[in-house]
Amino acid sequence: MRPAPPLRPSSVSRVLIRRHVPSSHRHVSQQAARSVAELLQWRPAQKADDVVVHGFVRSVRSMKTHRFVSLGDGSSLAPLQALVESKHAEAEGLTVGAAVRLTGSWVASPGAGQSHELHVGKVEVLGPSDAKTFPIQKKYQTPEYLRTMPHLRPRTPVNAVLLRLRSEAIASLTQFFAGRSFTQTHPPIITSSDCEGAGEVFTVTPANNTPDAVDNGSSQEPFFRSKKYLTVSTQLHLEALAQAVGNVWTLSPVFRAERSDTSRHLSEFYMLEAEMSFVDHLGPVMDLAEDMLRSLSTSLANSATVQDLLFRSRNSGSDLAPADEVKRRWEGLARQDWPRITYSDAVALLLQRADRFTHKPIWGAGLQSEHEKYLAEHIGGGEKPVFVTHYPRDIKAFYMRETQPAAPDVPGATVDCFDLLVPEFCEIAGGSMREHRLDHLLDVMRRQRIQKSPSSEGGADPDKPSVNGLEWYVDLRRWGCPPHGGFGLGFDRLLSYLAGVQTVRDMVSFPRWYGRCDC
Amino acid sequence: MRPAPPLRPSSVSRVLIRRHVPSSHRHVSQQAARSVAELLQWRPAQKADDVVVHGFVRSVRSMKTHRFVSLGDGSSLAPLQALVESKHAEAEGLTVGAAVRLTGSWVASPGAGQSHELHVGKVEVLGPSDAKTFPIQKKYQTPEYLRTMPHLRPRTPVNAVLLRLRSEAIASLTQFFAGRSFTQTHPPIITSSDCEGAGEVFTVTPANNTPDAVDNGSSQEPFFRSKKYLTVSTQLHLEALAQAVGNVWTLSPVFRAERSDTSRHLSEFYMLEAEMSFVDHLGPVMDLAEDMLRSLSTSLANSATVQDLLFRSRNSGSDLAPADEVKRRWEGLARQDWPRITYSDAVALLLQRADRFTHKPIWGAGLQSEHEKYLAEHIGGGEKPVFVTHYPRDIKAFYMRETQPAAPDVPGATVDCFDLLVPEFCEIAGGSMREHRLDHLLDVMRRQRIQKSPSSEGGADPDKPSVNGLEWYVDLRRWGCPPHGGFGLGFDRLLSYLAGVQTVRDMVSFPRWYGRCDC
Repeated sequence: MRPAPPLRPSSVSRVLIRRHVPSSHRHVSQQAARSVAELLQWRPAQKADDVVVHGFVRSVRSMKTHRFVSLGDGSSLAPLQALVESKHAEAEGLTVGAAVRLTGSWVASPGAGQSHELHVGKVEVLGPSDAKTFPIQKKYQTPEYLRTMPHLRPRTPVNAVLLRLRSEAIASLTQFFAGRSFTQTHPPIITSSDCEGAGEVFTVTPANNTPDAVDNGSSQEPFFRSKKYLTVSTQLHLEALAQAVGNVWTLSPVFRAERSDTSRHLSEFYMLEAEMSFVDHLGPVMDLAEDMLRSLSTSLANSATVQDLLFRSRNSGSDLAPADEVKRRWEGLARQDWPRITYSDAVALLLQRADRFTHKPIWGAGLQSEHEKYLAEHIGGGEKPVFVTHYPRDIKAFYMRETQPAAPDVPGATVDCFDLLVPEFCEIAGGSMREHRLDHLLDVMRRQRIQKSPSSEGGADPDKPSVNGLEWYVDLRRWGCPPHGGFGLGFDRLLSYLAGVQTVRDMVSFPRWYGRCDC
Repeated sequence: MRPAPPLRPSSVSRVLIRRHVPSSHRHVSQQAARSVAELLQWRPAQKADDVVVHGFVRSVRSMKTHRFVSLGDGSSLAPLQALVESKHAEAEGLTVGAAVRLTGSWVASPGAGQSHELHVGKVEVLGPSDAKTFPIQKKYQTPEYLRTMPHLRPRTPVNAVLLRLRSEAIASLTQFFAGRSFTQTHPPIITSSDCEGAGEVFTVTPANNTPDAVDNGSSQEPFFRSKKYLTVSTQLHLEALAQAVGNVWTLSPVFRAERSDTSRHLSEFYMLEAEMSFVDHLGPVMDLAEDMLRSLSTSLANSATVQDLLFRSRNSGSDLAPADEVKRRWEGLARQDWPRITYSDAVALLLQRADRFTHKPIWGAGLQSEHEKYLAEHIGGGEKPVFVTHYPRDIKAFYMRETQPAAPDVPGATVDCFDLLVPEFCEIAGGSMREHRLDHLLDVMRRQRIQKSPSSEGGADPDKPSVNGLEWYVDLRRWGCPPHGGFGLGFDRLLSYLAGVQTVRDMVSFPRWYGRCDC
């Protein structure tokens, strides 16, 4: 390295940065580029010159004098048509997959496929592409094949629509909760609870190949004092935050080490969780979930993205559910007054149709997916989502509040909880009132043997029985814990439902599940 | 469990759920509660009856006939004053920390501290509190002490303000990016790259205590095929997504297993990362970072939350930086035209003041924190953030694009990158142009020995040299990779700066760092 020369600092200004920009790059900002979506909506009466667009070549048709280039930039399902003279010096670079900037005139098109097209004067190939080896083809490619290359898959037009849907849904939900003065929070990802040893958690340890460890040959102190896990749900931490600022929500990654191979499960997914403080019963919690999804549906239904989903041609080379089915889903969420039925009533209803089912409905057991499907199809008229409430206590989580007084005519104790079922997909959300009374919570934990883990600290104090790393959660009940409740919603599963994607693996850009974690 | 009785399903309706609601709870929804913040702004000319508010008792002063209760609900730093007759049956339950619902009249207050106060008719203690053991006190408590109980710490008034600041900042940024048609994305958390073996990563493995493993006594297949890590940055994945939908951003948790104990570092924190596609040089990337922060500052500066931060009394029992200092930070971000200076010019400037520094500034070495501090204080006038650009290639990451043509008068190769420095805190963001050309990228990776890891797959194909699990990242350059660049910003650090919080550990509700991961 040479020693520093005696530089004279120039005056400190924006100009400095320009010094290093090669002059050949400077023309770029002269004319702002327009998105393909923007251009497709633009139908000027007269031709417009000096129009700049950038994007990726989706296909090329070579005619005698011209090449017809389909250009996409992810902003719309439909491509833009550009005409380039075959003799153009750069025409050879317009290969499938190439990243290009085109400048030309936007003129009415004589063709039937589009109202306008770009007559290109200037071609700049910014990122060349070897079309022969480019793995993304315009022809139909199976989802399984596309899943082998998650880093390239988003370049297919349908996957770009899915990315936009996610983005617009996040923005819409953020606005919904802000409008209701819910505080958006960032609960922790690395946590101390192993979810009661259910085994479906990932553990977190620092990589051992630090330079220090190698140099010293010594084994290091554990990074954290005890075993740590990736969160399976942010609910417990949200409850702590709700006792500080009232209603809270989060959209957070959560993790499950499930060794299962289904279209509904991933090892890593986003969960939307909300917690309401100072609510006495389940009604307002269900109202919130219902209002939220209705707001999402009505705010996005007319967006270009959802219109792309609803009015795509049948042969858009995708595996999405039929457009009319997807349309029904959006309309279902927009409807008022979703039915609410108790688990006990649902079981009674299912028993009346017991001959239809492989598994007999039994009060006290979980609902089988054939049961949920029946309820989702028939109670909501195949359209509206359905709340099923008040499940038996013994099949639900320890933190759920027991229904009191117990409903008459019900064979056992229930809890104040709900599952939200939609047609086809069944459960997309679940929620409950949380047990907010210290003695009741400790009773349940004792019954469910959550107490007295030997590894847990704090067991010596008889007033603070050991509760397997959940001492802090119990603590919340010691001082000022109002009645509260909330819900969690699988965000990727909801998006799959609304997009008509058949498996959540195709809704997530880089899906992780048992055996698979590419890139 | 008793067998299911022959229930007759009731008509499916909203009414069902009401059946289980004890009548004693029904009164609640009759009068909607107002937040403390809302009430403090409300100055009716005449007294208003039947006002309902819920919250937590912060303090109680007992006088002869009345108790003066300070009530907070997280919506404002200032509490509401409520007067309860000492002889009220429930008055005894109004202990510090208790969660209560108060109903009464909102009347002009004779006291100096508030314009109005609540004359309470009805007291409901919804979550009692044993004030003697409640660890949160109104008197000053050190940050170190509060950090030992992260589940309770958010209940202090200042911590509630910090939670609201985070929420409002997320909403504001979401709106900013939506307004510019950036797609918000969810890049993966579990990734394949170990960050070039730097050792500061966490590994992810499933807990081994699954019932299956125990039952079979067998060692299971590894959950994923190879070693997996928690992401340290989403940039590489964002680049893939930017090639599909153009400009993208994310606010995502990232992880560093740094065994360091500083006020600036956490093992888990949120990073805001943005990637711009089809940009040829660094200017627009810096413009984006600058515009984003200016928009954040101007959109929030007049919010109740920021006003709480700026106009809090000096003895609010917090360790925040002085309010006038915090005010200067907000104003600094709102200013136009932040200075931009090259690293080389910065080093020359520092050399002129070399006697001030413990470490002599040397071209080719990183800037020491005393150097950054000097630049942040002097170039931005102690107010505006400062971009330092074009650092030496050899001290920067492999993916950064080399500056071409090289600037004259500069002793070695540089890259198109920037650090964004603010007074006091120094670096809060960093960005660069990414090397988008395949051959150039492979050259750098070869030079930095990122290639030819024996553990990597795909090494057999001479056209696809092994690049240590980054084959997919190299692949992005094979087909249609336009010039692009982006930046990352430590979100929690930014919030600390804007709140005046001295250590990022007090900005995050459940902070994790070397040796510490409570709750």
